[in-house]
Amino acid sequence: MDIKEYIKEKQRLIDNYLNNYFISPFKPRVLYEAMTYSLFAGGKRIRPVLALTSYEVCGGNPEDILPQASALELIHTYSLIHDDLPSMDDDDLRRGKPTNHKIYGEAIAILAGDALLTEAFRMMTVRKDSKKESRRISNKAIVTLIHEIAYSSGAYGMVGGQTQDIISEKMEPERETLEFIHKHKTADLIKASVRAGAILAGTKKSILNALTKYGENIGLAFQVIDDILDVEGKTEELGKTSGSDVKKGKMTYPALYGIEKAKQKSEELVSSAISVLKIFSSEADPLRDLALYLLKRRA
Amino acid sequence: MDIKEYIKEKQRLIDNYLNNYFISPFKPRVLYEAMTYSLFAGGKRIRPVLALTSYEVCGGNPEDILPQASALELIHTYSLIHDDLPSMDDDDLRRGKPTNHKIYGEAIAILAGDALLTEAFRMMTVRKDSKKESRRISNKAIVTLIHEIAYSSGAYGMVGGQTQDIISEKMEPERETLEFIHKHKTADLIKASVRAGAILAGTKKSILNALTKYGENIGLAFQVIDDILDVEGKTEELGKTSGSDVKKGKMTYPALYGIEKAKQKSEELVSSAISVLKIFSSEADPLRDLALYLLKRRA
Repeated sequence: MDIKEYIKEKQRLIDNYLNNYFISPFKPRVLYEAMTYSLFAGGKRIRPVLALTSYEVCGGNPEDILPQASALELIHTYSLIHDDLPSMDDDDLRRGKPTNHKIYGEAIAILAGDALLTEAFRMMTVRKDSKKESRRISNKAIVTLIHEIAYSSGAYGMVGGQTQDIISEKMEPERETLEFIHKHKTADLIKASVRAGAILAGTKKSILNALTKYGENIGLAFQVIDDILDVEGKTEELGKTSGSDVKKGKMTYPALYGIEKAKQKSEELVSSAISVLKIFSSEADPLRDLALYLLKRRA
Repeated sequence: MDIKEYIKEKQRLIDNYLNNYFISPFKPRVLYEAMTYSLFAGGKRIRPVLALTSYEVCGGNPEDILPQASALELIHTYSLIHDDLPSMDDDDLRRGKPTNHKIYGEAIAILAGDALLTEAFRMMTVRKDSKKESRRISNKAIVTLIHEIAYSSGAYGMVGGQTQDIISEKMEPERETLEFIHKHKTADLIKASVRAGAILAGTKKSILNALTKYGENIGLAFQVIDDILDVEGKTEELGKTSGSDVKKGKMTYPALYGIEKAKQKSEELVSSAISVLKIFSSEADPLRDLALYLLKRRA
């Protein structure tokens, strides 16, 4: 299997769904433009791809859950818009383009983020398999999913992690706080994306547990790699200003342990992620290859 | 019936539910404090009260839907925190207290709003009637509710209205734009709150339609009255700086039509709201009295 092709195919499904969903401009036009500017700014759709892959590994057809998987990208996009704001990380560049508030101003950027977050929950209620009789995704599964995603992306998850990240700036790096930031700011939503596929497939508990551990490990690895890329990556490749974590005094893995230990840690986490997949046979190969692919990413 | 007592009793139910829900501080502590600061700053719980009343009018026991009704207050509170930000309406005072960002700073205020909005959707999935067998609220009703609330509070509703409000500042007042702002910024979520009760009660379409019109009319009246109070109210009574709409060049009803016409309009809207309730007998008296009560409010 060519994992790059596999990912591309899933990205196409997501982009296609999102394009159709947002095909008609609405009033106020500037809100529509600000929302779609960031949503179609070249995101890699990693969270939706993970949800589709996990659903497929559990025996489902990815097309069934396109609304629910795509909603994860709306949440991710809103979080980037708000994180980039002047009062937060104050970033000018994202995915090689000016950040949302640089184009639309702070007020519209905040509102575009709010609107994307709200729309994500509406999108989760949409059925792709529209015929009532043949619905593969039950109302019960949708309710469970919404609970899961709200938990992982709110005060007890992503927003909590981002808050800790902001208040820990310029503080002496320290293990417990760093772990809190990584777990909540990044890993929680990635873990929930993997779990989303399993929840929607109605999979049994032992499989859900394995996928949960897989998701947690690649989620943590993802953030450690992000921290490494901020040190070693080039602005042109990253699409955002490299070295900005150090400049802001962010509490990162390399800041606490050094770059070599950080690389070792990211490899260990990816190994652990792959190792919990041993209860699956070859059907989980996409998840294994995805973990290795994320380890090697350059942006 | 004493409507003030009726409202107080419902407010107590909501406050009690919210107090218990947020009884345990979580980490990061400052996020917990910022969220609860605004949530317990003396809000009148009008949207939850409307949902409980509408559910009761449709024959239900309000206690069944406390999570879903309370979630509306989280959405309202988040919208106030974000609206008050320096880049938006830049307000220092709300309900007689410093606004959220005045206490916690802009970054935490934005995050507290994000967390409240996200938590609202989790709260909507919570069942008050915990025994699975005896659940009065179906998963299907929860999914329909989440769709409804997300639609009314997002890009096509409240956030869209707030965006139009911001971009229309200092522009020549004009009927179509003013109606768009009132409808979406305020009326949409109030209408959805009334509908929420009916949706959760699984009521029939003719009743849902009447309650929809009632909600729309009192929602519009609510905003016209808000505009009037900004001109005529005292800062001490309002709990926010009076006259600030004029100062900011906001597009308001009095700005376009004058204060007398605005008063007449609010009375007409309340009359219309009461008149669509004619399909009910005395069971809808609380809704009738609520409409009259809102007309006479001083803050």
